[in-house]
Amino acid sequence: MITVLAIGIGSGSPAHLTAEAAAALNRVDVFLVADKRAETSDLAAIRTDLCRAVITGHNYRVIEVADPARDRDPSGYREAVADWHARRARAYADVITRELPDGGTLGFLVWGDPALYDSTLRIVEQIRASGVDLALEVYPGISSVQLLAARHQMVLNTVGGPIYVTTGRRLVDEFRPDLGTVVVMLDGDLACGRLVEEHPDLEIWWGAQLGLADEALIHGRLRDVLPGLTERRSAIRAERGWVMDVYALRTAD
Amino acid sequence: MITVLAIGIGSGSPAHLTAEAAAALNRVDVFLVADKRAETSDLAAIRTDLCRAVITGHNYRVIEVADPARDRDPSGYREAVADWHARRARAYADVITRELPDGGTLGFLVWGDPALYDSTLRIVEQIRASGVDLALEVYPGISSVQLLAARHQMVLNTVGGPIYVTTGRRLVDEFRPDLGTVVVMLDGDLACGRLVEEHPDLEIWWGAQLGLADEALIHGRLRDVLPGLTERRSAIRAERGWVMDVYALRTAD
Repeated sequence: MITVLAIGIGSGSPAHLTAEAAAALNRVDVFLVADKRAETSDLAAIRTDLCRAVITGHNYRVIEVADPARDRDPSGYREAVADWHARRARAYADVITRELPDGGTLGFLVWGDPALYDSTLRIVEQIRASGVDLALEVYPGISSVQLLAARHQMVLNTVGGPIYVTTGRRLVDEFRPDLGTVVVMLDGDLACGRLVEEHPDLEIWWGAQLGLADEALIHGRLRDVLPGLTERRSAIRAERGWVMDVYALRTAD
Repeated sequence: MITVLAIGIGSGSPAHLTAEAAAALNRVDVFLVADKRAETSDLAAIRTDLCRAVITGHNYRVIEVADPARDRDPSGYREAVADWHARRARAYADVITRELPDGGTLGFLVWGDPALYDSTLRIVEQIRASGVDLALEVYPGISSVQLLAARHQMVLNTVGGPIYVTTGRRLVDEFRPDLGTVVVMLDGDLACGRLVEEHPDLEIWWGAQLGLADEALIHGRLRDVLPGLTERRSAIRAERGWVMDVYALRTAD
């Protein structure tokens, strides 16, 4: 029998790991990781360091599963993602069959929380659908949204008010001030810039590389801070080769 | 100088505590806790057990601050909450001045995450406004929403889709299927029941007492599971004296 542990590792810092996630890491025989792009090799290094820091007295292997190429044409987005997940699931199923012929415990290290904009649980479903029998355990992790709020020392909701979490892709179509605090994830291009004209009073709480050494935070009225923020974001990307950021928007009361 | 640590403790189980939150607990000289109602005395016991389990070699005191009475009349909800927070802030300021005349580290144990539907950070702001100089550090915790998703082994969002978090008070007015997955917190009375007629295809993922021994989970089509869910919720409340629950709603694809 194979047991899969989907383990939320937050920012990847041992500081943000829960006790049960640390215990789960210590049960894993084989970690499966996808190394998506050459430029995220320092993310792979963070995972490696985390395992070294937290796992004691248990032997484990880390297997990189080559990620199938993904069609990034924005038309047919959902279909492209679904197809990409299916091909990835087959790649994982092959590796599982080869690496754990007698069963054991598989681990997926999930940035943030497996419940938020992460494909691990869908992939596990698809591996099961491809005929591999798997038991599953899920361990939540501190998401980048929570780290953003903690760093800004903010409560995400106004008193009794709502919170809306969406993606950069959807933001401009969906934004309305009565959605409450709008949290934007997976935004490659600061889509919030296109809201400034219609919503000049928007306030932004932005964070990049949260939990890492080059963490950056900016808070202010969007139209005032956007130029500096855009510059800061480009500078991080230029230096690191990648930038991961998240932000919250709210109309000033 | 007084430093305030707002520490997210998730469900109150040491398993859900992050390493940095555990380290923060070990720095606290005085914990301030509000014991809101007699029936939550077992929640106070969970906090006590958590401190005993996690804090090693550091002396600390736990001071209960009597909570001012709160006007629960739903008209003028925001004003009533604001007034209640202000009175609570004065009560805390008095205790801080008395208990830490020479400075030190104050701790607030926050169920879930300080960024989600919790008043601790607003109270700290109001204590500051009342003239007490405080440094603040915030530590995120695993929220009940995350535990709900982990237990149901679900991803909150559909692929690339949004998530809307609101309260039971607002749910019926605000609900629209295109909000994506709708997460409902602070719902004393299963307001989702009033959506069944207009939205017969709603699916619900519900959890109560998450992380505790009497944890309960129900998932299914809302109109099918609502009677059993209502009964289960009443049974927990009858046995425990209180029930804390959270749920996610989504229209079946």
